[in-house]
Amino acid sequence: MRTKTAHMQTTSFTDIARHLTDCGTPRVWSLLVAVFGELALDRDARISGSLLRHLTEQMGVKPEAMRVALHRLRKDGWIESARTGRTSDYFLTPWGHAQSMQASPRIYAAGPAAKSAWLVLSNPANPAQLEASPGAWVSSNVMITSVPPETEEVFTTPVTDTCPLPAWMSARICDADTVRLSQDFASALHALRATLGSDPQLTSIEIAALRVLLVHSWRRIILKAPVLPDHVFPDGWRGVECRVNVFNLLDQFPKQALASLETALVSGEPR
Amino acid sequence: MRTKTAHMQTTSFTDIARHLTDCGTPRVWSLLVAVFGELALDRDARISGSLLRHLTEQMGVKPEAMRVALHRLRKDGWIESARTGRTSDYFLTPWGHAQSMQASPRIYAAGPAAKSAWLVLSNPANPAQLEASPGAWVSSNVMITSVPPETEEVFTTPVTDTCPLPAWMSARICDADTVRLSQDFASALHALRATLGSDPQLTSIEIAALRVLLVHSWRRIILKAPVLPDHVFPDGWRGVECRVNVFNLLDQFPKQALASLETALVSGEPR
Repeated sequence: MRTKTAHMQTTSFTDIARHLTDCGTPRVWSLLVAVFGELALDRDARISGSLLRHLTEQMGVKPEAMRVALHRLRKDGWIESARTGRTSDYFLTPWGHAQSMQASPRIYAAGPAAKSAWLVLSNPANPAQLEASPGAWVSSNVMITSVPPETEEVFTTPVTDTCPLPAWMSARICDADTVRLSQDFASALHALRATLGSDPQLTSIEIAALRVLLVHSWRRIILKAPVLPDHVFPDGWRGVECRVNVFNLLDQFPKQALASLETALVSGEPR
Repeated sequence: MRTKTAHMQTTSFTDIARHLTDCGTPRVWSLLVAVFGELALDRDARISGSLLRHLTEQMGVKPEAMRVALHRLRKDGWIESARTGRTSDYFLTPWGHAQSMQASPRIYAAGPAAKSAWLVLSNPANPAQLEASPGAWVSSNVMITSVPPETEEVFTTPVTDTCPLPAWMSARICDADTVRLSQDFASALHALRATLGSDPQLTSIEIAALRVLLVHSWRRIILKAPVLPDHVFPDGWRGVECRVNVFNLLDQFPKQALASLETALVSGEPR
C-alpha cells in the first residue's frame, strides 16, 4: 500500500465511507467515542479540534453536528477540553478513559470471544448463582456461559461444536436484531472491499477515519453479542465473517499515530 | 434350604413377617394386589378363598380386614370371584390383569431401572416435548431421563457417574419421603436377614407369604422412584441395597407354584 500523493483526488473516500454509514447516519456521539478509543487511549493523548473536525468530515459528519456531540460528551463527563491559543484540544476524562479501556479488549479482539461454552443449570430457587457468569440465559435458570461458576450447586456440561444447539436456544444466545446487524455489516464489508480494490491509496487521515468507521460499526454488533465461542451462535449469524474482514482491514490499514496525523493535518497532506 | 417339617414350630414366621410390616400395618388391599401379582398372573389362575385367608393370616392380617379388602377389590373391578361348592375362588379381571402386567416388569426387575441418563432441556415455550420421556423433572423445562426424545428441538447431554449431580437436583429426582422409605426398608431387610439366619426352614406357604411381603414393600418404593440409573439418585438413597437384598431373598426363596400351595393347604402341611 502506498500513501496517496496530494495531486490525487480524494472524492473516492466518500464512496468508501458510505459503505460504513449507509445503515443510517452514525450517531456522532458514539462515533466520537470510537475516535477517542482509537486514537486517544494513552493517558496524555490530546486531539486537536481541527483534527477531530477533519476526521469526522471524512465520515460525512457536518461541523454543527460535531460541535453538538463534543458539547454533549463534555457534559456527560466523557471528555475534557483545554484551550491552546485560538483552538482547543480534547482528551478523555479519567472516567471516559476507564469506559474506553473496559470496552477496548472486546472490540479490538481479533479472535473469538471465547473458546469453550458450558450449559449451566442453577437451582431454580437460586438463579443468582449464575449472575456473575458471562454468556446468555436460555431459560430462567439456565445459561450458556464461557466461565461456569465454581460451585457444586450447579449442573455444568460442555457445549461442543459437534452437536448444534436447538434453534430456540441459539435464538436466545443472540437476538434476531443483532443477527440482522451482522448480516448488514457483512454485506457492507463485502461491498467495501470491492470499492477499496487491491491497492487503495489512502492518506493517513483517511486511514484513521476508515479504522474508526470499521471499529464503530463492529462495536455496535460485538458489544451486543455474548462472550461465547462462535459455534453456539444461531444460523444466519455473520459475526465471524465480519470479525475476520474487520481485522484483515485493520491489519491492512494499520493504526496511525496521533502525532503523525496532527502533522499531516498541519502540512496539508490530504487536500 | 430344607422345607420345614410339620412338627417344627411356625411361630418364627410371625417374627420374620414382623420385619416387613413394622413400618405400619400394610394396607390389605395393596397386599392382596401383591398376592395376585405374585401368584395369579397366569390367565387361568384362580386362588382359593382359603389359601388367600391362610396367606394373609401369615402376614398378620385379620380375617375381617381380608374380607373387606376382597370386597373392595371386586368393587374396583380388579378381581372377580366364582363359587366352587361351599367356598369361592378369586382371579384377576382382564383390567386387573393388565394393571398387574404393567407394573410387574418394574417391580420384578433385579437390575437397575436404566443404564444411562440424559439431561434434556426443552424450549420453555414447549415443555410438552418431554412429557413422554421417563425420568424426573428437575426444573420447569428440564428433565433427567433414560430415554431422551428424538427431536432436534431439545438440548440433550449425558449425565454420567463421574460427576455427581447437585444436591437440589437429585432431591428432585427422588423425594425425601421415598428416600426415607428406602432407608427404613434397607434396615428392615438387614434385621430380616439376621432373623432368617443361614438356613431358615419355611413351609411353602410361608415362602409365598415372605415373597409377597418382600415384593409389597419393594413396590411401594420402586414405583415411586423414576426409571433412571442408580448414580443419579440422591445421597441417602438405599434403594440399590434394598433391590440387591430383595432379589437375593427372592432367589433364595423361589416362587411357589399356585397348585402346590393349594395342595399343601389341603394336605395340612403348615399346621
